[in-house]
Amino acid sequence: MRTIEWRDGRVWIIDQTRLPHDVVVLEISTVDAMIDAIRRLAIRGAPALGAAGGFGVAIAAGSASAQQLGTAHVRSEAARLADARPTAVNLSWGVRRVLARLDDGLDAVIEEAQRLADEDVEANRAMGERGADLLTELCGVPLSVHTHCNTGALACVDWGTALGVVRTLHGRGHVREVFADETRPLLQGARLTAYELAQMGVAHRVVVDGAGPSVIARGMVDVVIVGADRIAANGDTANKIGTYPLALAAQRAGIPFVVAAPESTIDLRCASGALIDIEVRDPSEVVSFSGVLTAPVGTDALNLAFDVTPHDLITAIVTDRRVIRPMAGPIVACG
Amino acid sequence: MRTIEWRDGRVWIIDQTRLPHDVVVLEISTVDAMIDAIRRLAIRGAPALGAAGGFGVAIAAGSASAQQLGTAHVRSEAARLADARPTAVNLSWGVRRVLARLDDGLDAVIEEAQRLADEDVEANRAMGERGADLLTELCGVPLSVHTHCNTGALACVDWGTALGVVRTLHGRGHVREVFADETRPLLQGARLTAYELAQMGVAHRVVVDGAGPSVIARGMVDVVIVGADRIAANGDTANKIGTYPLALAAQRAGIPFVVAAPESTIDLRCASGALIDIEVRDPSEVVSFSGVLTAPVGTDALNLAFDVTPHDLITAIVTDRRVIRPMAGPIVACG
Repeated sequence: MRTIEWRDGRVWIIDQTRLPHDVVVLEISTVDAMIDAIRRLAIRGAPALGAAGGFGVAIAAGSASAQQLGTAHVRSEAARLADARPTAVNLSWGVRRVLARLDDGLDAVIEEAQRLADEDVEANRAMGERGADLLTELCGVPLSVHTHCNTGALACVDWGTALGVVRTLHGRGHVREVFADETRPLLQGARLTAYELAQMGVAHRVVVDGAGPSVIARGMVDVVIVGADRIAANGDTANKIGTYPLALAAQRAGIPFVVAAPESTIDLRCASGALIDIEVRDPSEVVSFSGVLTAPVGTDALNLAFDVTPHDLITAIVTDRRVIRPMAGPIVACG
Repeated sequence: MRTIEWRDGRVWIIDQTRLPHDVVVLEISTVDAMIDAIRRLAIRGAPALGAAGGFGVAIAAGSASAQQLGTAHVRSEAARLADARPTAVNLSWGVRRVLARLDDGLDAVIEEAQRLADEDVEANRAMGERGADLLTELCGVPLSVHTHCNTGALACVDWGTALGVVRTLHGRGHVREVFADETRPLLQGARLTAYELAQMGVAHRVVVDGAGPSVIARGMVDVVIVGADRIAANGDTANKIGTYPLALAAQRAGIPFVVAAPESTIDLRCASGALIDIEVRDPSEVVSFSGVLTAPVGTDALNLAFDVTPHDLITAIVTDRRVIRPMAGPIVACG
């Protein structure tokens, strides 16, 4: 199945908090359940959040409350959905896009949400081809790749963004090895990326986040490729915490640092990274693991969920429609 | 008690694998037990390893086997001790220094091991004063500080190196806040540094390792201060994995990156960081936590225990005897 799909008037998602050890599918039929799934990262990844936002509006529009209370109620539910997590722009983009069909009736809303999800898969495949071409041009093949967090099928409706590029390269027989950061605190790299790479049959090793820059400095990889949660107009890119140090290390090592993300991740209304709202999550995610406290009782933590990589450290941004070189100037709308 | 001490013909150490939740003291009376304690990081931290090496030789020299087999046996036991972990030069330095007294008899050996431990405490206090003066000169006060791993009393016989500087600054009332990286995979920051900072009464927050560079980029700290496991003649510094990204981030942010370590950590026979032997530990430390597997069954990991920070990223190295500016030229022996 896809990471998120619409079936029988409900949304079905793979619960990513249970992977890699258990594959559990959640059935979501209320806006509250969708918001809860988004907040606790049962569904995550910028493109998947776009689909979750779209399907969430479909749920709101089809609810009994919507029949009683009308479109004003659906719009207020949509606003709650869009605010469930602040950093990934795709969530509010998905909500807005599907909400725009509200006056055309429930069928139109569901159709738009479905179309958004289908287009995400097509966009990722296009990005995979374009990204694989770019990496081949930049580095030659076969390639060793460093990546962070999870940007695979699980972060999207299917296929993947940065890991989708790896999937396409692997289909061409051009991947030597992937190094995946474990990605504390929630371990999306160790849990999800290692799971997807094993399923693909790609050679891979996990490293702690602090080791990524050393892997790069030691010449063990040819390129760093990551996803994005929001790309500002000047090319500054918000992505999972721990991305920025990889960009610093890539620059020093003289290897390319590439971002792969759909056009919907570009937020031209946001001028620079300084204006991106960075989610701060609960300290308990940092000071405990699997229910075991890792620090003394009462220890405080700062749990920044994302960091911002300045555009001058980014070699290229690959989208479903183009390759952007942020150092060449501000991003313009894709005509 | 001190982190490691000699009493009644045995060595007593605080078992650092059990902190912060349990304070357990281990009694060590054989070389094998000492090597085991070193390998599994029950005792750790470059200066503490120097003392462990010295006391380990005392144990070897006082053993029944030594009485039967003579000094050749003690020398071979000493070689095993020195090889227990490869990166921290202090371990073999401590072994060599105490072994040099072997021909003077057991009492002389024990006395030398005791003196080495006492001198470590004095050295750390001197380093604390010098480091606190330097940080005050570089940044003004009060200071917010970023640090990595554990470099406190627990990493030494007492007081601490980088965290000893913080301890001295705090004694002067000049510390605003400390950010401590959790330091995966073995969480010395979350477990040990947070424990020591709480005992000192210093305001502190733990962050995941991937967040350290963001804390620096956001202007939340004035300086980064870390310890060292081996300093090459050109100033390149091996320290716990995850140190290098902080140095990259400090350079970009324009804040000082300072190393605090005793003179015994400087290895003038090692010309540059490229020649430092970096310990690679068991992958299981990366892909599991508290006995829970974090990645799919069978996932491989690369577990580099240390990284190397090039000397051009280091503002200053503070020792018990001087302040070294690595960019000014190679380190010379301290006269």
